Amino acid sequence: MPAGSDDGFVKDIRKQSQDFPGWYNDVVRKAELADNSPVAGSMVIRPYGYSLWENIRDPLDALIKQTGHENWYFPALIPLSFLQKEKEHVAGFAPEFQLVTHGGGKELEEPLVLRPTSETMIASVLRNYIQSYRDLPVLTNQWNNVFRWELRTRFFLRTREFLWQEGHTFHETAAEAEEEVDRMLECYRQICEDWCAMPVFLGRKSETEKFAGAQYSTAVEAMMKDGKALQAGTSHYFGQNFTRAYDLTFTDRSNQREHPHSTSWGMSTRMVGAVVMAHGDDFGLQLPPRIAPIQVVVVPIFRTEDEKSQIQEALGPALHPAAGVRVKVDWRDERPGFKFNEWELKGVPLRIEVGPRDLAKGEVLLVRRLDRSKKESVPLLMLKSRLPEALSEIQQAMYARALQFRTEHTVRLDSLAAMVDFFEHRIGFVITPWCGRAEDEKLVQERTGGATTRVIPKNAAKPAGACAVCGTPAVSDVIWAKAY
Amino acid sequence: MPAGSDDGFVKDIRKQSQDFPGWYNDVVRKAELADNSPVAGSMVIRPYGYSLWENIRDPLDALIKQTGHENWYFPALIPLSFLQKEKEHVAGFAPEFQLVTHGGGKELEEPLVLRPTSETMIASVLRNYIQSYRDLPVLTNQWNNVFRWELRTRFFLRTREFLWQEGHTFHETAAEAEEEVDRMLECYRQICEDWCAMPVFLGRKSETEKFAGAQYSTAVEAMMKDGKALQAGTSHYFGQNFTRAYDLTFTDRSNQREHPHSTSWGMSTRMVGAVVMAHGDDFGLQLPPRIAPIQVVVVPIFRTEDEKSQIQEALGPALHPAAGVRVKVDWRDERPGFKFNEWELKGVPLRIEVGPRDLAKGEVLLVRRLDRSKKESVPLLMLKSRLPEALSEIQQAMYARALQFRTEHTVRLDSLAAMVDFFEHRIGFVITPWCGRAEDEKLVQERTGGATTRVIPKNAAKPAGACAVCGTPAVSDVIWAKAY
Repeated sequence: MPAGSDDGFVKDIRKQSQDFPGWYNDVVRKAELADNSPVAGSMVIRPYGYSLWENIRDPLDALIKQTGHENWYFPALIPLSFLQKEKEHVAGFAPEFQLVTHGGGKELEEPLVLRPTSETMIASVLRNYIQSYRDLPVLTNQWNNVFRWELRTRFFLRTREFLWQEGHTFHETAAEAEEEVDRMLECYRQICEDWCAMPVFLGRKSETEKFAGAQYSTAVEAMMKDGKALQAGTSHYFGQNFTRAYDLTFTDRSNQREHPHSTSWGMSTRMVGAVVMAHGDDFGLQLPPRIAPIQVVVVPIFRTEDEKSQIQEALGPALHPAAGVRVKVDWRDERPGFKFNEWELKGVPLRIEVGPRDLAKGEVLLVRRLDRSKKESVPLLMLKSRLPEALSEIQQAMYARALQFRTEHTVRLDSLAAMVDFFEHRIGFVITPWCGRAEDEKLVQERTGGATTRVIPKNAAKPAGACAVCGTPAVSDVIWAKAY
Repeated sequence: MPAGSDDGFVKDIRKQSQDFPGWYNDVVRKAELADNSPVAGSMVIRPYGYSLWENIRDPLDALIKQTGHENWYFPALIPLSFLQKEKEHVAGFAPEFQLVTHGGGKELEEPLVLRPTSETMIASVLRNYIQSYRDLPVLTNQWNNVFRWELRTRFFLRTREFLWQEGHTFHETAAEAEEEVDRMLECYRQICEDWCAMPVFLGRKSETEKFAGAQYSTAVEAMMKDGKALQAGTSHYFGQNFTRAYDLTFTDRSNQREHPHSTSWGMSTRMVGAVVMAHGDDFGLQLPPRIAPIQVVVVPIFRTEDEKSQIQEALGPALHPAAGVRVKVDWRDERPGFKFNEWELKGVPLRIEVGPRDLAKGEVLLVRRLDRSKKESVPLLMLKSRLPEALSEIQQAMYARALQFRTEHTVRLDSLAAMVDFFEHRIGFVITPWCGRAEDEKLVQERTGGATTRVIPKNAAKPAGACAVCGTPAVSDVIWAKAY
């Protein structure tokens, strides 16, 4: 047997503890999730990254359908005049517009905007389908690309084009729309926690942080390993803002014309970046088994063709695709240590090492990416049942570890001085009582080098004390963090 | 029991036999597949149409993966200069370009083109990943939207934005690339024939009809019910055209720098239109069971709540989702005749009618969309096993019917006069011996009011005779048709 994987080379990626952004860039590129593209501000998503996205997208699509939504497809190009109808919305998004001005060799009469989000298009279209309260609710979703002119870009987190789903729903009453906002936030929680092993805080955004045009926004916020917050999904309540701006009306039960209450909610390829930063380490990615493109990699150790076929024969039944585990056998002509390193870099949750000596004992070795040095001997006959069990254990352990990390890096404070001190010397989230004023957010941001409110946690009891920032009576707790 | 569905109203759609394009537009809109959008030339794909597209897309995605391809995602915006490197390609696509000239409030230094297809982007990106013959083949695919500035648009068939997959592959040798072209055309044949119940001719395109920049193009061509041809999928062989233009090279086995041989192939949302026109009739859509969003609709016939719960109870087990059949029970408060018509319009392959009298006999009635008047009594206990069987029979019968239609509307001719006569009085495809000259295509097009060569059928024996158009020696058979 070769020595353990520690003898390998992890030389090509910067250290997470020393240069987190550098580490992130290196991991994304070396693990072949994505790469720079020849177009400024856009990236190329490579197969390993796209497959990871598919494994997040598919369970989310299933949840969206289970909760009664239907997929539509709306045009990507939106007339500029549509976008200008909701004043706050256009103010928020206009700086990011990318304009199509020519088509078919001629200048267009009106420029078209590449959708930065589709509220305006969808409200304009759904006017045709909503006449009466009997037509409500309308529960739409679409999977698509969106375009925002970003100046400082970063793989998956901020690019000029990205992929997402955007749900848009229309309801008879405010109460129903607000339930919808919560329902979809709960779907996002499930994707983050149950699939991506990433605990999240759920709650409302402050007025400062809400979506342009929303009455209020909610979000799920996850903690990355540098202590920063990442907004992993958002769900917005619009009240009648958009339906009023787009003159969308229905006849209600008392035969009056009324504007429906609407919502929108989205989750994007940014989730891939979140998974990298929530679980990775100096050796590279660590992927939760439920979303890992490859769940188990087999590194066979052999010198002769005869040894190779012995291994093939012994492993065959346990690794059959019908066993329901995503397995790859790495038969490449490379040293085992090289392979160990590469699959660790790519974050494959479970590795099987098997050579003639293991076969002679009728067993293989399992090594978890989670705790790299620990090896478990598994009898060949048990392998088929052991694999799903081991993957499930890893999924749970990764969630528990991320939750513990978050717990260790979340503190409750009650003064601005303590907050300033925290963000100067430590990483993580701070929870404080807050009065809700935007001036406080501005002050904290200036004094802490960038911490902002993330969410007002859901179901939190009203705090007894004073606002940590200004001392006036607090109306709720709020979570502060530096954020992506 | 109410009278059969013939007493209903199909009033809102024009007759297929009298106005095929009008019928098509009506069916697409009334069956809620798609609708006009507020943006000229673009459509909105509604849930029923999108679900149909998902049911074509998913098995195609599985085939693409099974044949060793991986999904990537490349930027939608391509610098104009990239597109200008391959001369024939840019000449073919430039009239359809849509240009982004402004981003983030400023005019761009170089306009970006919304991808009409991604050969140029992908060749530019893959330069970075292909160094040696050991890196080949590279087998990429992507699912995305594309943009072409069309002047005369038609639902699904020709719109300024549409959805598709585009595969792009790079190979060490010409032979391997040509095998790939055939392999993917065969995948398209499977989707058309095995999933969409739509027989296709496979073959090469003429020089006139090939893709801009290809050495040759191949296609699958289906016959619509107006006798016109629809190109349902294409697969192109580029030789080294694109890799030379984009300076993509690799070190071959004899240590020389060489350009890989590349291919591309695509299938799009146009398939939805093909399914409508290949199977529909005056009553609306007819959907092949394997791709139908709803395979079985239950129309319960009841007067009282008690009767309603009897029906619910009796049907429950047979219609459980776990039975693997996509079933919808239509409990709406509408007349059965209204429901029959609506589900016929929407092309649901199988209808179950069930009321108290049927239950008393322990049975239900099955009615096939295929042959609307024939009713089959099925004992309740047999329903669970009968449904998949009946759906499979319908799938086969729809294919057989489409094949028979095509056979009846395909003739072999050997003179221009006969061709002119055919296209004046009949609909369908004409097969003739052909010398291969573009002048003949021009002449036939002029004389027949638009018939063009569709494909040179694959594996056809070399014809003995003379070219039907000009009398010089023929080199192959060719299929002529008016086309979408």
